[in-house]
Amino acid sequence: MSDKTKLLETFENPNKDREYIIKHIAPEFTSVCPKTGQPDFAKIILEYIPDELCVELKSYKFYLQSFRNDGIYFEAVTNQILDDLVLVTNPVWMKVKAKFNTRGGISSVIEAEYDLYDDFDEEEYLN
Amino acid sequence: MSDKTKLLETFENPNKDREYIIKHIAPEFTSVCPKTGQPDFAKIILEYIPDELCVELKSYKFYLQSFRNDGIYFEAVTNQILDDLVLVTNPVWMKVKAKFNTRGGISSVIEAEYDLYDDFDEEEYLN
Amino acid sequence: MSDKTKLLETFENPNKDREYIIKHIAPEFTSVCPKTGQPDFAKIILEYIPDELCVELKSYKFYLQSFRNDGIYFEAVTNQILDDLVLVTNPVWMKVKAKFNTRGGISSVIEAEYDLYDDFDEEEYLN
Amino acid sequence: MSDKTKLLETFENPNKDREYIIKHIAPEFTSVCPKTGQPDFAKIILEYIPDELCVELKSYKFYLQSFRNDGIYFEAVTNQILDDLVLVTNPVWMKVKAKFNTRGGISSVIEAEYDLYDDFDEEEYLN
Amino acid sequence: MSDKTKLLETFENPNKDREYIIKHIAPEFTSVCPKTGQPDFAKIILEYIPDELCVELKSYKFYLQSFRNDGIYFEAVTNQILDDLVLVTNPVWMKVKAKFNTRGGISSVIEAEYDLYDDFDEEEYLN
Amino acid sequence: MSDKTKLLETFENPNKDREYIIKHIAPEFTSVCPKTGQPDFAKIILEYIPDELCVELKSYKFYLQSFRNDGIYFEAVTNQILDDLVLVTNPVWMKVKAKFNTRGGISSVIEAEYDLYDDFDEEEYLN
Amino acid sequence: MSDKTKLLETFENPNKDREYIIKHIAPEFTSVCPKTGQPDFAKIILEYIPDELCVELKSYKFYLQSFRNDGIYFEAVTNQILDDLVLVTNPVWMKVKAKFNTRGGISSVIEAEYDLYDDFDEEEYLN
Amino acid sequence: MSDKTKLLETFENPNKDREYIIKHIAPEFTSVCPKTGQPDFAKIILEYIPDELCVELKSYKFYLQSFRNDGIYFEAVTNQILDDLVLVTNPVWMKVKAKFNTRGGISSVIEAEYDLYDDFDEEEYLN
Amino acid sequence: MSDKTKLLETFENPNKDREYIIKHIAPEFTSVCPKTGQPDFAKIILEYIPDELCVELKSYKFYLQSFRNDGIYFEAVTNQILDDLVLVTNPVWMKVKAKFNTRGGISSVIEAEYDLYDDFDEEEYLN
Amino acid sequence: MSDKTKLLETFENPNKDREYIIKHIAPEFTSVCPKTGQPDFAKIILEYIPDELCVELKSYKFYLQSFRNDGIYFEAVTNQILDDLVLVTNPVWMKVKAKFNTRGGISSVIEAEYDLYDDFDEEEYLN
Repeated sequence: MSDKTKLLETFENPNKDREYIIKHIAPEFTSVCPKTGQPDFAKIILEYIPDELCVELKSYKFYLQSFRNDGIYFEAVTNQILDDLVLVTNPVWMKVKAKFNTRGGISSVIEAEYDLYDDFDEEEYLN
Repeated sequence: MSDKTKLLETFENPNKDREYIIKHIAPEFTSVCPKTGQPDFAKIILEYIPDELCVELKSYKFYLQSFRNDGIYFEAVTNQILDDLVLVTNPVWMKVKAKFNTRGGISSVIEAEYDLYDDFDEEEYLN
Repeated sequence: MSDKTKLLETFENPNKDREYIIKHIAPEFTSVCPKTGQPDFAKIILEYIPDELCVELKSYKFYLQSFRNDGIYFEAVTNQILDDLVLVTNPVWMKVKAKFNTRGGISSVIEAEYDLYDDFDEEEYLN
Repeated sequence: MSDKTKLLETFENPNKDREYIIKHIAPEFTSVCPKTGQPDFAKIILEYIPDELCVELKSYKFYLQSFRNDGIYFEAVTNQILDDLVLVTNPVWMKVKAKFNTRGGISSVIEAEYDLYDDFDEEEYLN
Repeated sequence: MSDKTKLLETFENPNKDREYIIKHIAPEFTSVCPKTGQPDFAKIILEYIPDELCVELKSYKFYLQSFRNDGIYFEAVTNQILDDLVLVTNPVWMKVKAKFNTRGGISSVIEAEYDLYDDFDEEEYLN
Repeated sequence: MSDKTKLLETFENPNKDREYIIKHIAPEFTSVCPKTGQPDFAKIILEYIPDELCVELKSYKFYLQSFRNDGIYFEAVTNQILDDLVLVTNPVWMKVKAKFNTRGGISSVIEAEYDLYDDFDEEEYLN
Repeated sequence: MSDKTKLLETFENPNKDREYIIKHIAPEFTSVCPKTGQPDFAKIILEYIPDELCVELKSYKFYLQSFRNDGIYFEAVTNQILDDLVLVTNPVWMKVKAKFNTRGGISSVIEAEYDLYDDFDEEEYLN
Repeated sequence: MSDKTKLLETFENPNKDREYIIKHIAPEFTSVCPKTGQPDFAKIILEYIPDELCVELKSYKFYLQSFRNDGIYFEAVTNQILDDLVLVTNPVWMKVKAKFNTRGGISSVIEAEYDLYDDFDEEEYLN
Repeated sequence: MSDKTKLLETFENPNKDREYIIKHIAPEFTSVCPKTGQPDFAKIILEYIPDELCVELKSYKFYLQSFRNDGIYFEAVTNQILDDLVLVTNPVWMKVKAKFNTRGGISSVIEAEYDLYDDFDEEEYLN
Repeated sequence: MSDKTKLLETFENPNKDREYIIKHIAPEFTSVCPKTGQPDFAKIILEYIPDELCVELKSYKFYLQSFRNDGIYFEAVTNQILDDLVLVTNPVWMKVKAKFNTRGGISSVIEAEYDLYDDFDEEEYLN
């Protein structure tokens, strides 16, 4: 668990009876390559089905901004965002997809998923 | 049940023998953020399989317009639209997807679904 | 069964051994709103797996044109096109999708489907 | 079996151990309408999983060009291309999709498929 | 196993507990046609679920560049890239999709897949 | 001068001191080919600098709809719309651009312009 | 001069020596049709060359929001925005372009321009 | 003057008082490379200001189709189309733009223009 | 003159005899709003005609990155980039266009230009 | 004059009486960075008005391919292509535009032009 989780605020899910999907698309993520010190840029797509708690949007923005001058790898940052958000909101299901800008002529997408009961049928929801 | 349901009119489903899908795409939804008082903008995508009743299009337009100066959160308004329409039309299946414009560099999509028999196989219909 | 079915001609399916899909996309459909008398515009997407008969393309064009000055609702016209074509061609499977232009800031899509054996697995064919 | 199959050359599948997919997209197909004598234009999309043999690309180009002045219907030409290629390459699975240009305001897509064991799960491969 | 595998470096998967997907999109691949000596151009899309090891991005770039003046066929190069990467990273699942530029009016896509347990349900991950 | 001009209503230009541009884009124009009786479809783009009068939008819609069942050629209808609107609004400058759907594989655009003083420098306004 | 000008704040042009262009694109403008009471939606594109003063962005946002429940015509609102901004910032050159959403199947664009010396050669700047 | 001009029919310009522009876009042009015998494909864009005569659309379609099996170079065919149409319609101004499909990884556009008085200011009309 | 100019390196123009245009498009610019401390994001488009010196691309990248944690306004940063580059390269002509991401629902573009002889005819070069 | 000019073949302009434009778009150009040894990729857009000679397309393709393993800078290669083609074809007017892929997050376009009489009015031809 990273210190950054303190930045994340939650509010009570206003519709606990129904499983529904919340998606936040943040195209302005930037961090720094730990090897070269060069800035990296990504679009972070968060999708989740809340249980008791939803992540508060403004605090989520500040959370993402907190990586601005951190040196961190593509794979690590994607998994950390998922870990932090799962810890704080304890959702039914959650997915983080990070689309990184081209580096050396190659662009990368990292996609990690969490499933409370391990039986979420994504097909039924997302088409 | 909100008072707004009074705005919604229905007409009899002209094809009760066949399960078919009706989709209304409304890109001009606007309400107000309850915290900041700033206007929010969204595209509301409604899809449903009618049972006995269909929602009348013009009354649906007025219903959506009735949120114009209401202070209401993304998650709440999406679920309320679904609740109100389910109550009034009692459909076989219904989904509301609300795509909100960028706020603080982040855009959001909320998607809620209702299923009368809880066994609707969306894949079979929607591709 | 509508009188318009007389406009529809068929020809023998040249490949009865194989189930294959025929799709006709007609973006120039227009009819008239029965309430306001205002013209409506739609793109009609027909997909089907023929059994013994295929619909002749030119006659299908004239069939669609025959709605030009008819007053008819979105839901009704979509279902009628499906009914008429099923009656005339008796297909294995058929789907009609009608995408209507924006009216009052809202655009609509109606989608109706016919399945001879009620077990057509659309996923296997259409992706 | 058409005479045109003589135009098709094959080469040995370089990876017989693994089922993989080959796709050739040919947007410059043209033939002639048997009724009106007017030229038709289509994009031919061929997908297949080879068994022992692959179709040689240049010979496939000449094969498609051989239809240039032939009078042949949409449904017939799509099925013939599939039949000829199945005969010559004997694949595990093959699909031909032909997208024809607009005629009389209507564009058409014909899609035919061959499956050696009749149990190919396209979903697993193609998304 | 090709000599080129020496070019590929790996690093330890930072999240071995979770199956997640890594995707690298390389639009600047070029090799040479073994028949004509003419250059070929492709976009290489690599997707995989790592087990113990991830492929290091810069070494992967050099690996792809090493084909620059090699004479090699579409089908062969796609399968070789998959073979080399599976050998070096031993992943849970991996797919290589190569989209080649138009030659003689026809463009080609070759797609090959590796599955450690042969039961990977791609649908669950990739939509 | 055609009878249809009676359908066109005007309102007083609210800003007579300043030359400014009004543009109305109407993608739902349809008329009938005088030769074949087949429907034609076009997008009508009207641009003008008003002098004393502006064309009222709803009446302009009805005016365009009045061609629905008229048999008239591309070139004639474009020029008539310009003539009628010039007559009724007497503008400083006006242009009508009609983009017709594909017929026989060919789409057409007709563009006619009126200039009160014959010295309008379109470049200064429209880029 | 409208009361709304009080909402507009300015700041001193930080580069008075050089004529340069500032452009603000506001896609979330909404007002109300004075005839029907129905909401209108537009994208407001403001371009200007400042002299002594620039318009402050946040105050400009509030200024545009102040039209939310005003009944006002397309032509009037576009010219008023230009008048108000010219009055408050006294620019070298300014242009307001308002692109309104489709109403009755027709979308509209109103474009008004102000030029201090009446000899601005837009071509030299904007291409 | 080529024999093909006999295929071109004309009709009297219905609006001789006004200089206006007619544009025909034909995306289905095909001829044959005189060197290799391989088919070439192009989109032919014809624009002209008629004087006394307009080219009849259907005859123009047949004229373009007459090149189907002719061996002719890109530059030559573009100039011939212009020459033939100028001869037959004697326009005020005419331009032919031919956009050829990729050959050997290179696509080509040839553009030729005719001006009766050699002083046509295209800028004034076409933006 | 800012300290940042020390970051900019130049190399001798390899073609001093000919006036030609160099354009660098940098979509990953980020700085910080001096009021709110929130990050801003922009695409910086630099175009210039070199005289004796060209800006070295890598040093230009580091120069742009140096703004990463600076608090600076849209108008100021655009003009500073132009000032710094003019000072260091002394070009014949130069233009900086900065396209900033949406803030409060409004996106902004600032465009500043430098002309050594004040008679550069941009039209002749850029279309 | 580079040795590569020997690769360029010409043919006589078939229409010397008329000034017309020839454009060749080559998206598959690749060379090598002289500093890093890394491959560069560009789209080369050549436009010219021929005088006596046209460049033969296939030889032009081989000419561009000859840079494949050359170490050469963006600015230099663009000007060399223009110099070589001017020398070999002696055109009335010629322009070379090279659009290079992103390097270090920045993409570049170099554009150089030649004019025999130095009075070519590009606006008259190219819009």
